[in-house]
Amino acid sequence: MPEPSHRFLRACLRLPVDRPPIWIMRQAGRYLPEYMEVRRQAGDFLSLCKNPALATRVTLQPLERFGLDAAILFSDILVIPEAMGMNLSFGTGEGPILDPPVQSPLDLQGLRQPDPEKDLGYVMATVETIREQLADRVPLIGFSGSPWTLATYMVEGGSSKTFSRVKGMLHDRPELLRGLLDRLVEAVTAYLNAQIRHGVQAVQIFDTWGGVLGHDEFLEFSLESMRRIVQGLDRNGPDGNRVPVILFAKGCGHHLEAMAGSGCDVVGLDWTTRIGQARERVAGRVALQGNMDPAVLYASPERIRAEAERILTDYGPHPGHVFNLGHGIAPDCEPHKVAALVEAVQGFSWGGGQA
Amino acid sequence: MPEPSHRFLRACLRLPVDRPPIWIMRQAGRYLPEYMEVRRQAGDFLSLCKNPALATRVTLQPLERFGLDAAILFSDILVIPEAMGMNLSFGTGEGPILDPPVQSPLDLQGLRQPDPEKDLGYVMATVETIREQLADRVPLIGFSGSPWTLATYMVEGGSSKTFSRVKGMLHDRPELLRGLLDRLVEAVTAYLNAQIRHGVQAVQIFDTWGGVLGHDEFLEFSLESMRRIVQGLDRNGPDGNRVPVILFAKGCGHHLEAMAGSGCDVVGLDWTTRIGQARERVAGRVALQGNMDPAVLYASPERIRAEAERILTDYGPHPGHVFNLGHGIAPDCEPHKVAALVEAVQGFSWGGGQA
Repeated sequence: MPEPSHRFLRACLRLPVDRPPIWIMRQAGRYLPEYMEVRRQAGDFLSLCKNPALATRVTLQPLERFGLDAAILFSDILVIPEAMGMNLSFGTGEGPILDPPVQSPLDLQGLRQPDPEKDLGYVMATVETIREQLADRVPLIGFSGSPWTLATYMVEGGSSKTFSRVKGMLHDRPELLRGLLDRLVEAVTAYLNAQIRHGVQAVQIFDTWGGVLGHDEFLEFSLESMRRIVQGLDRNGPDGNRVPVILFAKGCGHHLEAMAGSGCDVVGLDWTTRIGQARERVAGRVALQGNMDPAVLYASPERIRAEAERILTDYGPHPGHVFNLGHGIAPDCEPHKVAALVEAVQGFSWGGGQA
Repeated sequence: MPEPSHRFLRACLRLPVDRPPIWIMRQAGRYLPEYMEVRRQAGDFLSLCKNPALATRVTLQPLERFGLDAAILFSDILVIPEAMGMNLSFGTGEGPILDPPVQSPLDLQGLRQPDPEKDLGYVMATVETIREQLADRVPLIGFSGSPWTLATYMVEGGSSKTFSRVKGMLHDRPELLRGLLDRLVEAVTAYLNAQIRHGVQAVQIFDTWGGVLGHDEFLEFSLESMRRIVQGLDRNGPDGNRVPVILFAKGCGHHLEAMAGSGCDVVGLDWTTRIGQARERVAGRVALQGNMDPAVLYASPERIRAEAERILTDYGPHPGHVFNLGHGIAPDCEPHKVAALVEAVQGFSWGGGQA
């Protein structure tokens, strides 16, 4: 297999790079006035996700402002439950609503396995349009929510603070939850493989709600589903390059070793873990992505630079570091703070080169 | 110093007990209809906190229903900022509001150091009334918020999702935040010592928001403040018994060893840590409290019992386990589920006694 030339792909595969690459979770989003402008044009968030031309435009916006090393597909994790037949809407100021919630074997039977080419064809069209317009300047990352995270929305019927329904199901009807997770493993695997066929060059699985599970519950109900997806992905991209897989589970620093054993190439860290210690814990099995607290972007450009350098130094001059925030960027972040961060990472140098 | 006879105090000090004691964070609260009745009488939440007769009544309510092994003072962590001169109110359906937020050295200077006997006299009166009515059936736990957790509310002016102001302050004006934390260390130490003088037999420090800090930030800005409080407490109660100190920081399982080194007697765990592994990690330095996911109470009584027994078995037949949830009980919990949990812990037996 040929070695990729892009800094981001090289770092994911722990190949030497001139400096660590940087991209930012939710880099195309509400903190950018030009994004808000396009979103107004689109009418609402979901229409924006489903419009390949506009979704491409917002995907590329942060790359025009900042020297980021990767683009990430603009979409939403909940397009999968929608493609399975649930009604998806976003109330103003509230979270998403999925209707009707999955609460019985009958509800589960009523879900269909989506055909990504057809039911999620607008995502595939967006992927192709982005790749075309990117013209190989930087790689494109595809993504999906994890089965557990998708299941929380599908069983709760939307966002939740207590996860009462999905955790009630986990304890009282674990076979029903397992059935739903099985369906999601299949759907997410097919969805990510389709994204790869259409041109994404890396994929990230977001387990936003893995951290609300008990220790062994995370391993059984979230990580195991992600592991099965990783095993089912076609890691040979159509261009002959290997497609790296990134797992990100918020609040799961204590599961780092287990995640590194899932078969993924990169584990994403939130900011509660020291990245230098994390590097020792994974012992070269995977690359690490992260891990600046998004809230550091509320501080001054000087502090942002110092914090970025602290993280780069803590990881050290080893291959396998993808710089990122430890969670999505906040909607009230000022864009010039992002510029300061990107410049800090771009300007960072070990002097002597990588070990 | 005499050995205490109460099961809860003995477990805190890692003395042998017939079975692990159980109490429940937020055991006096909205899930109990009789609590809602008294709260309606009181008019609002803060009036209830400030009425020693009614606060005593709700403190004792869960003990009348369930065979719990400790009572916990009914109050709120934000009475401290109020006693320092901030305006405290609770909007309906929203979180607390503290006005005006602390954002400058001048704001900090404007805060007064409360005299707990005078400014928080209603808490001391409540402590005395509870002790009187408890008549030594079970011990009474006092509590306070941690300096970091209190600072988040004082700087944000209430609850926050992003902690933008307090984290901005941490990075850009760390000396201002340190000044506020110093004031809070002094205030909380005096407050807890007053609670001890008036009769609480153990104290818990709640660091609800410690888990939102970066790894080293937690050690520097939260744990260090708690350590100073622990060092400043008068651990010899007026009855001659030692007053155990419990530290609880949500989402901080990765800081377990550091917390165990703070001088506290007990560390509270949320449910993301295996309690058996945690016991090995603290190696007899402290007792452990926890750690059932409050969401297990949405499951059936059979599952609740099984989960309680799993946790008791995981800790094993060693001294030093205080059974509790890993976070406060949810307002929509059904009381008969709590009964099932308490009965499971009460009925648990090692057969052969404790190691």
